Amino acid sequence: MSRLFLFAAASAGQWKIQSISSVIGQSLSPASHLRIGPASELYSLESPAWVLQGIVSNERYITRDEKNQLLEVQEGLNRPASVCAALIPIKKTLAWWALSQDERRAIFEERSNHVRIGMKYLPPIARRLHHCRDISENEPFDFLTWFEYAPEHETSFNELIADLRATEEWKYVNREVDIRLVR
Amino acid sequence: MSRLFLFAAASAGQWKIQSISSVIGQSLSPASHLRIGPASELYSLESPAWVLQGIVSNERYITRDEKNQLLEVQEGLNRPASVCAALIPIKKTLAWWALSQDERRAIFEERSNHVRIGMKYLPPIARRLHHCRDISENEPFDFLTWFEYAPEHETSFNELIADLRATEEWKYVNREVDIRLVR
Repeated sequence: MSRLFLFAAASAGQWKIQSISSVIGQSLSPASHLRIGPASELYSLESPAWVLQGIVSNERYITRDEKNQLLEVQEGLNRPASVCAALIPIKKTLAWWALSQDERRAIFEERSNHVRIGMKYLPPIARRLHHCRDISENEPFDFLTWFEYAPEHETSFNELIADLRATEEWKYVNREVDIRLVR
Repeated sequence: MSRLFLFAAASAGQWKIQSISSVIGQSLSPASHLRIGPASELYSLESPAWVLQGIVSNERYITRDEKNQLLEVQEGLNRPASVCAALIPIKKTLAWWALSQDERRAIFEERSNHVRIGMKYLPPIARRLHHCRDISENEPFDFLTWFEYAPEHETSFNELIADLRATEEWKYVNREVDIRLVR
C-alpha cells in the first residue's frame, strides 16, 4: 500500500480532462487525460505532458473535535455517482512556511474557517489531500487536492472553492491551477 | 541547496562512530564512520552498512513564542569546539500518527515539555531535526535528530535525552537507536 500518488497527464486514461485553468500564476500544459496511481504504475508512462506527485500524510491542523466531525460525515472516493472530479494543485508562499504552527493553524481555521467551510459541502464532495513539499527539491506545488462529486453538485463545488479562495489563508497561495475532469 | 540529508555508515569519513546502542527495538549494524551530506554526494557510496535519509522541514508543533525563544538562544552546527555528536533515529507508533494535531501538540509540549526541556540545554547543544516519514514507503525511522556539542557538555547531553525519554511523548516511541560520534 503506497501513500505516494502520481497524477500524470496522458493521452488516454480513466479521467478525461475538460479544462486546465490558471487561478494564480503559471498554468500547466494542455492534456487530454489524467492517470492517477501509485508510482510503480506511472513512472513508465511515455512522455506525459506533466507528472505531479504527492503523499497522503497525517493531518497537520485539525483538532480531535474537527476530526471526529469529519469522520462522521465524509465519504470516500470512487462512488459510482461521482463522475466529476477536480485536481487543484496549490503552492504557498515562503512567508506561510516561515510561520509557526500556531500562527498557521490560526490562519487556517480560526480566521479562514477552512474545515468549517469544507464541512458544509460534505458528504456530496469527497476529497483526498496530497503533500508535495517534502518529497524532493523543486516540486512545482506544495499540495494537490483531488475532489470527486456527482454532476448535480458542481455548483456547490464551485461555491466551496470560491469560499476558500476568498479567505485570509489564500493570501499565502502564490500558484494555483484548477483542472476539471469527467470519467 | 538541498533539504534532504543522507547519513551513511561508511569505512571512512569526518565523523568516527564510538558506539551504536539500541534504546528501544532493533539496533543498526556496526560501522566505523558516518558520512553526512546531500543525496548527490552519498548515493554513490560503495556498500555502506546502512543509509538513513531525512528532510529538514518546517516546524510542526512549536508556537511563535517558543520559536522566538529558540531563535534567541540556539546556535548552529559546525562550531569548532563541538567535536562530539549524536545521531538519534526514532520511530513512533501508529497510535501517535492516528492522533489529531491538537492531541499530538498536547502530548509533545503541554504534557511532555519537549521544547522546554530542550531549551534548558541551549546554546551548548546544537541540533537539526530531519523528517523521514513522508520520503518513501518503509523508511526505518520517522525522525533523525543530529546533535553537536563540546566534550564538556556530554553529561548535559545525557541528561537531556534521559529527560526526554522519561516523558509521556516517549511512550509513543517504538524504535530508538543512539549513535555517538567524535570528529
